[in-house]
Amino acid sequence: MNRLKQLPLKNVIIDDVFWGRYISMVREKVIPYQWEVLNDRVPDAARSHCIKNFEIAAGKRKGQFYGMVFQDSDLYKWLESVAYSLETMSNPALEKLADSAIELIGAAQQPDGYINTYYTVSEPGGRWSNLQHGHELYCAGHMIEAAVAYFEATGKRRFLDISVCFADCIDNTFGPEDDKLKGYPGHQEIELALFKLYEATGEKRYLNLAEYFIRERGTSPNYLDLEREKPGYHDIFPELATFDRKYSQSHIPSLEQKHAVGHAVRAVYMYSAMADLASELGDAELQNACDVLYDDIVQKKMYITGAIGSCSVGERFTAAYDLPNDLIYGETCASIGLMMFCRRMNASNRDARFADTMERALYNTVIAGISLSGTEFFYVNPLEAEPSKISANPNYKHVKPARQKWFDCSCCPTNIARTVMGLGGYIYASSPDGLYVNLYCSGSARDGERSITVKTRYPYGGEAAITASGGRYKLFLRNPECAPVKSVEINGQKQSYNIENGYIVLDRDWRSDEIRMLFDMSPRLVYCAPESGNNIGKTAVMRGPLVYCIEQADNGERLGSFLLPGGAVFAESPPPAGLPAEAIALKSSAYKYPSGRTKLYSFSPPELESAAIEMIPYFLWANRGENEMRVYIPAVPILPESSG
Amino acid sequence: MNRLKQLPLKNVIIDDVFWGRYISMVREKVIPYQWEVLNDRVPDAARSHCIKNFEIAAGKRKGQFYGMVFQDSDLYKWLESVAYSLETMSNPALEKLADSAIELIGAAQQPDGYINTYYTVSEPGGRWSNLQHGHELYCAGHMIEAAVAYFEATGKRRFLDISVCFADCIDNTFGPEDDKLKGYPGHQEIELALFKLYEATGEKRYLNLAEYFIRERGTSPNYLDLEREKPGYHDIFPELATFDRKYSQSHIPSLEQKHAVGHAVRAVYMYSAMADLASELGDAELQNACDVLYDDIVQKKMYITGAIGSCSVGERFTAAYDLPNDLIYGETCASIGLMMFCRRMNASNRDARFADTMERALYNTVIAGISLSGTEFFYVNPLEAEPSKISANPNYKHVKPARQKWFDCSCCPTNIARTVMGLGGYIYASSPDGLYVNLYCSGSARDGERSITVKTRYPYGGEAAITASGGRYKLFLRNPECAPVKSVEINGQKQSYNIENGYIVLDRDWRSDEIRMLFDMSPRLVYCAPESGNNIGKTAVMRGPLVYCIEQADNGERLGSFLLPGGAVFAESPPPAGLPAEAIALKSSAYKYPSGRTKLYSFSPPELESAAIEMIPYFLWANRGENEMRVYIPAVPILPESSG
Repeated sequence: MNRLKQLPLKNVIIDDVFWGRYISMVREKVIPYQWEVLNDRVPDAARSHCIKNFEIAAGKRKGQFYGMVFQDSDLYKWLESVAYSLETMSNPALEKLADSAIELIGAAQQPDGYINTYYTVSEPGGRWSNLQHGHELYCAGHMIEAAVAYFEATGKRRFLDISVCFADCIDNTFGPEDDKLKGYPGHQEIELALFKLYEATGEKRYLNLAEYFIRERGTSPNYLDLEREKPGYHDIFPELATFDRKYSQSHIPSLEQKHAVGHAVRAVYMYSAMADLASELGDAELQNACDVLYDDIVQKKMYITGAIGSCSVGERFTAAYDLPNDLIYGETCASIGLMMFCRRMNASNRDARFADTMERALYNTVIAGISLSGTEFFYVNPLEAEPSKISANPNYKHVKPARQKWFDCSCCPTNIARTVMGLGGYIYASSPDGLYVNLYCSGSARDGERSITVKTRYPYGGEAAITASGGRYKLFLRNPECAPVKSVEINGQKQSYNIENGYIVLDRDWRSDEIRMLFDMSPRLVYCAPESGNNIGKTAVMRGPLVYCIEQADNGERLGSFLLPGGAVFAESPPPAGLPAEAIALKSSAYKYPSGRTKLYSFSPPELESAAIEMIPYFLWANRGENEMRVYIPAVPILPESSG
Repeated sequence: MNRLKQLPLKNVIIDDVFWGRYISMVREKVIPYQWEVLNDRVPDAARSHCIKNFEIAAGKRKGQFYGMVFQDSDLYKWLESVAYSLETMSNPALEKLADSAIELIGAAQQPDGYINTYYTVSEPGGRWSNLQHGHELYCAGHMIEAAVAYFEATGKRRFLDISVCFADCIDNTFGPEDDKLKGYPGHQEIELALFKLYEATGEKRYLNLAEYFIRERGTSPNYLDLEREKPGYHDIFPELATFDRKYSQSHIPSLEQKHAVGHAVRAVYMYSAMADLASELGDAELQNACDVLYDDIVQKKMYITGAIGSCSVGERFTAAYDLPNDLIYGETCASIGLMMFCRRMNASNRDARFADTMERALYNTVIAGISLSGTEFFYVNPLEAEPSKISANPNYKHVKPARQKWFDCSCCPTNIARTVMGLGGYIYASSPDGLYVNLYCSGSARDGERSITVKTRYPYGGEAAITASGGRYKLFLRNPECAPVKSVEINGQKQSYNIENGYIVLDRDWRSDEIRMLFDMSPRLVYCAPESGNNIGKTAVMRGPLVYCIEQADNGERLGSFLLPGGAVFAESPPPAGLPAEAIALKSSAYKYPSGRTKLYSFSPPELESAAIEMIPYFLWANRGENEMRVYIPAVPILPESSG
């Protein structure tokens, strides 16, 4: 087992201006808010009914199931964020509330271990009859993830026992044996959860079952097609009935898949499990499949913000380089899934480029998914939004120009909360020979004897002061692609260093030594490969890991009519009112095509006026009311020399 | 009545290289082909069942209705094109076939005059119960249009009598009287047809009924909403049930409508009837509504190709300036409807700008709708097509990169046929004081004593030789916006002239005088107003009325990566192989962003290479196999003087 290990959350302290804001907000505001939503006590928010569904399934309340078939998963993800919160800060009242929710889950558990409020309440005879859309295994996965987290946070076994009992029920139901179903989930998630359960319990059956689900998927004949032929089968989502096998990545066996296709969240959850299995089993073929799929996403199908999924129909990947900025799906959950996949690829490959992508998704799409107030959320994350067009053109009906209090299908809000509260698991990684720093964030960490303290204003500030102790080991400091390290000092002495797989490697007997790193945080123009036709001739702007955007609030309307000079130079400035004080805005001179031509089509070219442009970090957009926003801006092209 | 009159088709002879190709093709190939399709005798074409539906409704065959509820209209539009064909060239065999089809229609007529095979066969008790989607009045309109055309072509009354009988049935059913339904069609068409019937028969009831339908539409309470509440109502198209009132232009009364909204074909068919009524009734308020709606379309919602309808969901208009080139609907029928509206607006306003728009729609979108072979058709007319993206991204599933043999919903093929065969009605217009030339096309026309002969290679050639006779009258020669007249000679003498409302006015006692006009046919760069964000920084190219495009066949793949120099200069050249010999291609130097970057996102700007570009007329695209196509090409911007 060569892969890097996460540090337990309890060993990681985050004491950071940038992340402190999010962690406090989730802890103090989002977790309580989401509990209120799950209990249907927030006016004007989409109805959840999640807790009531459990109460009905547990026989404590009369009524009908309401919501998506996977409504249970909202409670599980909420519990996972609670677990991470408790692991890093005790809160007896919250723990008591969580314990009561866990008891409710236990009460909804059937004698054989099965738990799913939709099937228990609405279709008691329909268990496992619709793996394609029934989401029982998906919900089970989220329950297991939450239970493992709660066990690690509190040491209490109750939730873990419930989930072990359900996992055993699943293991008794699915597998290669003659008397078991040869199925696998329509929405992957159980696989990576079973892997966590295997790690938490040491029980190899769960590893085997995860492997079974991955290897069985997409084999011929296709189980998800066959189940439709069985007596009593009915469509849960008739509008999805015609979706192809690629939608659920079941078109060919998992190991033969070379292209990221279909529903983006399903895809990256599956690839995460494949990466877990590849390193645990030492399976080179599986690892190669992961490498190929990762490259296909990151070099052909990922937005500059780390968003994935170009199309709302099927929430899916489309063709290579098809990256529409306005029609995009870019689900918040999909970028969270991409982070999960990247963390695992980083762990097995020890290569910083996976952490670069993780950072891209985190600092841009994932935290764009939540408002500064903590109670509004994006499901879809466009790179270009024009409210008047969105409201008049039904093609954009999935795109909201303002964050929403909740959703009918509300997977994202709880996913953001568990990701923010679990951030500590993404910052460091550990191996026998060293400690890896993957994200720069003020705080400290312990890894056995090793300890490290970080002080930085990253992603705004360009400096990190790191103090390391604990004897001889290698410190692997990620050299961020978007903010390359300019210099490293140790104890005030300039230090030369090697870079291995994107990490600055410092090998030393660490005794409270102080490292000072300088990052190049100068704003950079970023260009998308010309194969992506709709971004040709445009530039995006990044500063460190942050992608920037223009908003109507700062630049007036008709954001599409700006033009940047070739090689535009941006100056840093304080943020506009209403944004966090630590944020940095960027200003540049620009041109703008004025409006007001009387004719739609004209033989004379529109004239450009001089203009100025102010950009803010993309993740902060839509915090000052509904308005236009754009990431990519057309730029004056740089012509070949010969053309003068 | 001040409006211009159409010349009867029998008075217009077309003897033209450009249009001769289309007219011969429709006459010799398309009309017979479409008859075969309507009889389900074309392998691999979508099933029509249209004739069988009539046979079943007439009791001559057993079976079920098949197809769209408006399937009958395909036969009616086919008969209309046959009528125009017979009016300009006799064909006894075809006339006999048409007569037999008319007898079949008559046999399907119910005792009270009602004809509709869907309701007669499938829902005999459901007549008029679903005006929103039932299409009975829509089909009736197409029947009446065909019947009037057949009467004018052949002098035979049979079809006209059938349609009069149905019109009387409708008049007995709808109207302001207490015992009648206060409804109006979900899909407008009957209104303009009743106006034609009024003109053909002199019966004012039909005028009144057309006016009733227009004035009742959109009044409160909304009839189309109310009918949904009636017992027995059921949705014919459940997927359209949630569409808003704007979809059918019934959101507010017709006369109060200031914005072109909803289903584009419905809209322009309605506006055509409004224009008819406005001039016939001398109703300034109605005329003003038409003017406002026309401007809203042409200055805010029309593509450079004369396509309209930006969105496939609801086949509808969206926001002003929302003109996506790839997602576009741009239905062929909608541009035909725009031509119809323009012809009427030209007739009532005597302004050439309406004919400019008519010409734009005709030469670009309408004839793009049919292949050079005559047996394949476009329903949707994109300005940008990338087959790999279309096949992988479900947002584009309405866009076909190749013309189709037929469609499940096949309104467009027969609409193209009747438009091409009825072209003579668009070329000239007549008033007591003069003769108007709206389109330049070789041939001749008689208008009472007046006669005119035209020789031209327009839209490719830049010259027209016109001989006029018949005494004193004004000749109004359209000065095309896209090909301005450079000079006029009469009998070899340079002639000065006035331009009134876009017409060169020549007032003379015409005695075989020969006019020679020169048009400026130089290729022009055309710029869309900057309000249309997605076309900013791009240019289109026109030569005369023809919009040009680049195709992969001539320029290789990745058409999105070309860049034109600012103020590009195009040279004319013979067309590529496979296109008509008379066509003119355009060539320019250009730049291209080469492919092959290893990273999707890069800090270095992509370098441009010198390249060449070859453009062909847009209407000829997709005649050489499936490939990429683009109309708009990014161009190097012209910066303000001060920025050097």
